[in-house]
Amino acid sequence: IPEPAPGPAPAPPPDLLLAAAFVSDAQYNRNIPFKTSPEAVRLYYLYNHWIMRTATYFFIFLNLSLALFEEPAVYPLPFLVTSVVEVLCLLVFFGRLTHFAKVTPRNVFWKDTKNICIMVAILLSLTDLAIYGILRIYNVRSIRWSRIVRPIFLINFAESRQIRRAFRSIRNTLPEITYVFLLFMFSLLMFSLMALKLFGERNLQTAEGLPYFRNYLEIVFDLYVLVTTANSPDVMMPAFDFSSWYALFFIAFVIVNTYIFMSLFLAVVYNNYKKHLKNEIRKLAYMKRRKMIEAFNLLKEEEGAQFVVREARWKQLVKLVAPDTSNSHRELLLHISDDEQKGFIDKKSFVQLADLLNIQVITLKIRSHPLGQWVPRMYQSAVSRFLRSMVRHRGFVWTYDVIILINAIFIALDEETPYISYAEWVFLALYIIEILLKVYTYEPRAFFGKNQFWNWFDTLIIFAALTATILNTTLKSTTKYNSQQILDIVFILRVLRLIRIVDSIQRFRVIMNTLINIVPTMLTFGGLTLVVYCVFAIIGMELFHGKIQYFPANSNAPHALECGNPALKDSLFARGKYCKNNFNNFASSFIVLMELTVVNQWHDILFQPAKLYFIAFHIVMVIIIVNIFVSFILEAFFVEYSLEKSEVETAIEQKIQELGMGVQEDELQDEQLLENMESSEHDLEGDGGAKPPSKGLVFKIASKRYRTVDALLQRMFEAEIPLEDEGPSFEEILNLSPTAPVPSHPTSESAA
Amino acid sequence: IPEPAPGPAPAPPPDLLLAAAFVSDAQYNRNIPFKTSPEAVRLYYLYNHWIMRTATYFFIFLNLSLALFEEPAVYPLPFLVTSVVEVLCLLVFFGRLTHFAKVTPRNVFWKDTKNICIMVAILLSLTDLAIYGILRIYNVRSIRWSRIVRPIFLINFAESRQIRRAFRSIRNTLPEITYVFLLFMFSLLMFSLMALKLFGERNLQTAEGLPYFRNYLEIVFDLYVLVTTANSPDVMMPAFDFSSWYALFFIAFVIVNTYIFMSLFLAVVYNNYKKHLKNEIRKLAYMKRRKMIEAFNLLKEEEGAQFVVREARWKQLVKLVAPDTSNSHRELLLHISDDEQKGFIDKKSFVQLADLLNIQVITLKIRSHPLGQWVPRMYQSAVSRFLRSMVRHRGFVWTYDVIILINAIFIALDEETPYISYAEWVFLALYIIEILLKVYTYEPRAFFGKNQFWNWFDTLIIFAALTATILNTTLKSTTKYNSQQILDIVFILRVLRLIRIVDSIQRFRVIMNTLINIVPTMLTFGGLTLVVYCVFAIIGMELFHGKIQYFPANSNAPHALECGNPALKDSLFARGKYCKNNFNNFASSFIVLMELTVVNQWHDILFQPAKLYFIAFHIVMVIIIVNIFVSFILEAFFVEYSLEKSEVETAIEQKIQELGMGVQEDELQDEQLLENMESSEHDLEGDGGAKPPSKGLVFKIASKRYRTVDALLQRMFEAEIPLEDEGPSFEEILNLSPTAPVPSHPTSESAA
Repeated sequence: IPEPAPGPAPAPPPDLLLAAAFVSDAQYNRNIPFKTSPEAVRLYYLYNHWIMRTATYFFIFLNLSLALFEEPAVYPLPFLVTSVVEVLCLLVFFGRLTHFAKVTPRNVFWKDTKNICIMVAILLSLTDLAIYGILRIYNVRSIRWSRIVRPIFLINFAESRQIRRAFRSIRNTLPEITYVFLLFMFSLLMFSLMALKLFGERNLQTAEGLPYFRNYLEIVFDLYVLVTTANSPDVMMPAFDFSSWYALFFIAFVIVNTYIFMSLFLAVVYNNYKKHLKNEIRKLAYMKRRKMIEAFNLLKEEEGAQFVVREARWKQLVKLVAPDTSNSHRELLLHISDDEQKGFIDKKSFVQLADLLNIQVITLKIRSHPLGQWVPRMYQSAVSRFLRSMVRHRGFVWTYDVIILINAIFIALDEETPYISYAEWVFLALYIIEILLKVYTYEPRAFFGKNQFWNWFDTLIIFAALTATILNTTLKSTTKYNSQQILDIVFILRVLRLIRIVDSIQRFRVIMNTLINIVPTMLTFGGLTLVVYCVFAIIGMELFHGKIQYFPANSNAPHALECGNPALKDSLFARGKYCKNNFNNFASSFIVLMELTVVNQWHDILFQPAKLYFIAFHIVMVIIIVNIFVSFILEAFFVEYSLEKSEVETAIEQKIQELGMGVQEDELQDEQLLENMESSEHDLEGDGGAKPPSKGLVFKIASKRYRTVDALLQRMFEAEIPLEDEGPSFEEILNLSPTAPVPSHPTSESAA
Repeated sequence: IPEPAPGPAPAPPPDLLLAAAFVSDAQYNRNIPFKTSPEAVRLYYLYNHWIMRTATYFFIFLNLSLALFEEPAVYPLPFLVTSVVEVLCLLVFFGRLTHFAKVTPRNVFWKDTKNICIMVAILLSLTDLAIYGILRIYNVRSIRWSRIVRPIFLINFAESRQIRRAFRSIRNTLPEITYVFLLFMFSLLMFSLMALKLFGERNLQTAEGLPYFRNYLEIVFDLYVLVTTANSPDVMMPAFDFSSWYALFFIAFVIVNTYIFMSLFLAVVYNNYKKHLKNEIRKLAYMKRRKMIEAFNLLKEEEGAQFVVREARWKQLVKLVAPDTSNSHRELLLHISDDEQKGFIDKKSFVQLADLLNIQVITLKIRSHPLGQWVPRMYQSAVSRFLRSMVRHRGFVWTYDVIILINAIFIALDEETPYISYAEWVFLALYIIEILLKVYTYEPRAFFGKNQFWNWFDTLIIFAALTATILNTTLKSTTKYNSQQILDIVFILRVLRLIRIVDSIQRFRVIMNTLINIVPTMLTFGGLTLVVYCVFAIIGMELFHGKIQYFPANSNAPHALECGNPALKDSLFARGKYCKNNFNNFASSFIVLMELTVVNQWHDILFQPAKLYFIAFHIVMVIIIVNIFVSFILEAFFVEYSLEKSEVETAIEQKIQELGMGVQEDELQDEQLLENMESSEHDLEGDGGAKPPSKGLVFKIASKRYRTVDALLQRMFEAEIPLEDEGPSFEEILNLSPTAPVPSHPTSESAA
């Protein structure tokens, strides 16, 4: 699907070229996929406004969550309500699409499969809703088949670029996976044939007294389950009891199919994932470069022998593109772009503007603590100074680490003893004192800076715990009754508090960084999983709804012990009390699918169509999506690991540092270590930081810690494109294939 | 452990430097870790003779397999017999070690930890044996603890270089794995604490009516098992039945611990494996280069301005190093080394000698079919020619593919119908005819060439099946009784025959190649697994011997249904009829350990010490060794994949081809496709192959198909060392660390 690529992720301003066209008053240019009237710019801004984006996501999830309220419902609502909400959602989607059509040239809009998909999905949903409604009036029950279509909105709206990329990656992997899968199936069929010949006529019985390995198709299914290890010793035991030698058959089977083939699946998926990822990153990097060159061409004026962009125009552009930037920040950017103060910016510097805007330069006013301004005498008094130096002391962190450990022991002890429940108040007080002391010592705005993950984490956890504990105590004293929900939350919050101790140990911090960096992209996989789960849950509900029922313990309903299904009498399913694992509503379906993802015990559900359904789910979810997830974690780890050793630094960052306006991150870190900050965050600026320039402003590059793998890979790749290289044209970029040669050697591999 | 590195694997002659020293009559040189007397050379040859090596392996495995005959025995033998055999084995090991000491300089020998290990192991074994024997005479039962020491012999004899490397790799990975493991344990403990707080006071019960989540340590164990997914829905069901919201706790747990942490383990292991592998390969490549330079320095003579090795000496050296090489092969090598026929070899060419000897150049006499010589008239007759062209026709392969498919259907059908059991004879006849026809058409010596995997496979399978079938029929007609063992073998052979169809499809062949290439190194992992299994099996037997007993069905013994252990009454273990999964002898222990490796159901065994034992085994086997195995398969796949795209060819192979003496592989392959050979093997030479040189000899490089990953990586690395580069000295090589910079950029990554 050739996307119009409104802008390379991660987040260079998507409208820089548009803004340049606007500034230059240029006529509509066939290379620019945007219209350039002031109204178009306004519409474009509106389209990209965060409220609009958030609203779109809200309606997408509202539409998806309708499955909770439609029959079979978790919380039943009348059909009229759900259908009105659905029509509303569809109208919103249509409006959003129309808006997008207005800011996109017509030929680009209609060429884009995404938009067609959304339109078709809206039409299908409306048709299905109408048919279902009419049939309902005449009391004919039919299937709401269009519900499967709903995840399409999640995939195809422009905001979900990451999910689309993951789907593209899967599509590209399919051919290779298919061959391995066929070979795997061949091996499975061969082993099953052997099993049939070896065990079929022995009259063996399983532990439940059922015939063992008599029917070819059942053998295939049993051995497929063995590949997932879910029925591991059980399937072997009858043959093993008959003769120990038969264990060899199963050992050979497990080695070939579970270990070798499953690893091969991972290898194929990982290899394709990596290839595809690199290609996407390369496209994005080239696209960015190309757009910047186009923008330069729109704004350029002749100056001596070369073309340049004049300062006034440049400022106009930056104001338009990044209206929130402060004056001083803009001056910094200009200073970097035009480092010889010539009053104009040459092509080479101009092309870097997107990156320049992308670097999260934090404007740090070297401001003193507000208390220092309001009550200077008290704040500078000997006691106060001592207090602050104490908080900065290494021992302060250690003391609190010890307190956390003691707290852990108290949590593990029994809650009922009054002595211990009072201790909880003491700990809560200690944690609150810690936060207050830190805010007293460090500048509060720096302490609650954007990237201060652990500070935010601490504060939120502790104040939530405080609120919940107070609420619970109030409830208890007034109603003599513990609210279970609140208590549960209090328990969880108390334990979560203990996590902080991990951040005190350097080695763990590196691993934690990787894990925190992975979170944003994990959300992509969350989206992917959501799509697959939704589709399978809706199919599953249609197929298996009501087949299994859950009765609370001590129920007198007939067949309560067999989950309301006499066919399950004496089955492992009923004996294991799995009755609540059913497809009776959307939420249960999700939990069953989660259990199927984890794989174990899924063979115990015994309907025949269920087997095919479960195999299909296993192939899609475990063989493909979980492997992509693992590939992603592997790649993220390797990128982090290679970065840990060799810091990739763009030319711009070097320049910021050369200009002396940036504070080098490592320096800051060292200082912080000296100052015994409890977190490794670089954004906390003590009073005695780097020498500030005369203005009292320090710009610095935002923390390295919370970058995405994408951004890191893109930086690595960009470091390889020479600044002079203009890169391929728009069309060439869109058609880049994963196998096309990379301009220079790839270096996203770790360098060891 | 700095090894004296008798020579770089894969298999350059380990004694080239020794031979050079011998040829040059040089005095003992401190750079050469060998003595150079004729007797030393003889001893060295003897030490490396294949009979000596095989014998050593035989005694190692004999020593290991003693566990089968010692108490608790699978096949009991008197203590006297096993102890005599053990002493014999120890004597052989001592002899082998003494032999090694004779061919190694004393200081090198004593510096080598391997040798010390072996000596200590021998001493320990003897001491233990003596103590045990004496105590036995006085009827005191003691533990044969030294049996754990036995795998040391497998690891430490010089032949097991691959296993040692795998162990080194594990040791290097340990520190990093430990940190991730600690973090993982921390997460596990936190979640367990939450679980205790959330569920501990609810009075919930498991499906078996046992208390649920009351005791902290039991929760930790249950959740550890959940990480392995073995008790996946069961552990969740009571909480889930109580409130659906509690499912969220388990979902969070599975995502964090099963998916993220387990992937992180794989990432750490893979990353270290790759790093370590590269370092080892680099060491080997440098070592080879260094040795060749030393050898050159021993043999060099002055010739004009440069030092060279004269032809006579060179030939003497090659004869000594590779006595089996044919004269014409030696001439070829000389021709390549001295391509201007100057009568001497310069340093640059000499250094390549090891690689040159390593290339499996196959001497192909363009000989006509023996039948063509013996009965030329008949062989060249029209019928014969038609027959042969028929066999070469594409349709011949297709016909047999169809026959195999029909055969598969017949196998799946019931055996008892007499019609179908006759069909078996027809198929057997058809397969035999196929082989005979092929031997008739192609030159038999080429057909049964060294690398003709599929031809050998076919022929062996079919003749084994023929023998077994005839044997079975004879037995049946004489004793009216089917021998079950023979029938089983016949069944397996019949099914194995069907595998051949995979090789007919090009895409499957690529995957099969990877799999076949992996086999040799998989044996290394087999060795590794054997060591771990041996140690754990011996410990397991000491701990759990006799705790569980297996009684055949319908046994009247007391507690037969509870595996002879009243404590197991009503347990899942007894109900699942797992009684044969016990530690009562070496073989059962192995099978139990295999089941534990596959992970499922291992928590059902309920003794307390068993839990710790199983956790330890899980950490060693699943977290470390299985991950290394997966890493290895990933790496092998990536190397294969990158080779598929860009062929790495050494300078020497290019030279062979330039000289026109080699037949280019691809050309051959094309011809074969034209000739419709049924296998993709390149070694089958039809009558009309490439134009032969006048001598009627064609040298060609042996098939690409069966190379090891090691060899491929080594080639890739060597392609990067410039021919002029002498590389570091012996000491530097031995101390190379994995983090040292590689001379040029690494390219063992796939190039995309």
